[in-house]
Amino acid sequence: MSSKDLETLRLQVDEINLKILQLLNDRGKVVQEINKLREVQGVKRFDPVRERKMLDMISENNHGPFETSTLQHIFKQVFQMSLELQEDDNRKALLV
Amino acid sequence: MSSKDLETLRLQVDEINLKILQLLNDRGKVVQEINKLREVQGVKRFDPVRERKMLDMISENNHGPFETSTLQHIFKQVFQMSLELQEDDNRKALLV
Repeated sequence: MSSKDLETLRLQVDEINLKILQLLNDRGKVVQEINKLREVQGVKRFDPVRERKMLDMISENNHGPFETSTLQHIFKQVFQMSLELQEDDNRKALLV
Repeated sequence: MSSKDLETLRLQVDEINLKILQLLNDRGKVVQEINKLREVQGVKRFDPVRERKMLDMISENNHGPFETSTLQHIFKQVFQMSLELQEDDNRKALLV
C-alpha cells in the first residue's frame, strides 16, 4: 500500500466523522423535544429504564469490531451530553 | 403533546442511535486498515497532527445544538477507542 491509500482511508474516516457529528446534533435536537415534553408532564429528565433499553439495543445490534462494553461506554457519554444540553437550556432560560 | 408523541420521538432517537452505532463500527474497520498500513510503514499509530485536524473539522462543521467542546470531547474518546481497538488486535496476534 502507498501513502495514496492512507489518504483515501483518512478521507473515509473524515466522511464518517462528519456523519456522526450530524447524527449527534440531530439526536440532540430530538432529545431537546423529549425533554420539553417530559417537563410539561412533570417527570424527571433522567429515566434509567429508558437508558437501559437503549444500552440493550446497542448490545443486540453490535456486529463489531468494537466490543459492546466500549460502545455502551461511549453511548453513556452521549446520554449524559443530552442531559447537560437540557441543563444549558434551563440556565439560558433563567437568564432571559 | 401526548405520550404518543414521546413514543415517536423515542423511536427517532433509537433510529439515530443505531445509525451512530453502525458508523462507529464502520469507522473502526477503516481505522484498523489505517493502523495496519502505518505499522507496515513503521510509523506510530498515534498522530497528534491528524487528531488536531479531525478536531478542527468538528469545530468547522458544527451547527449545534451541542457545543463544539462537548463534541470534541466525545470524538477524543472515539479516537482513543480506535487506538485501543488496535492494541486488542496486537494482543490477539501475540496469542496465536
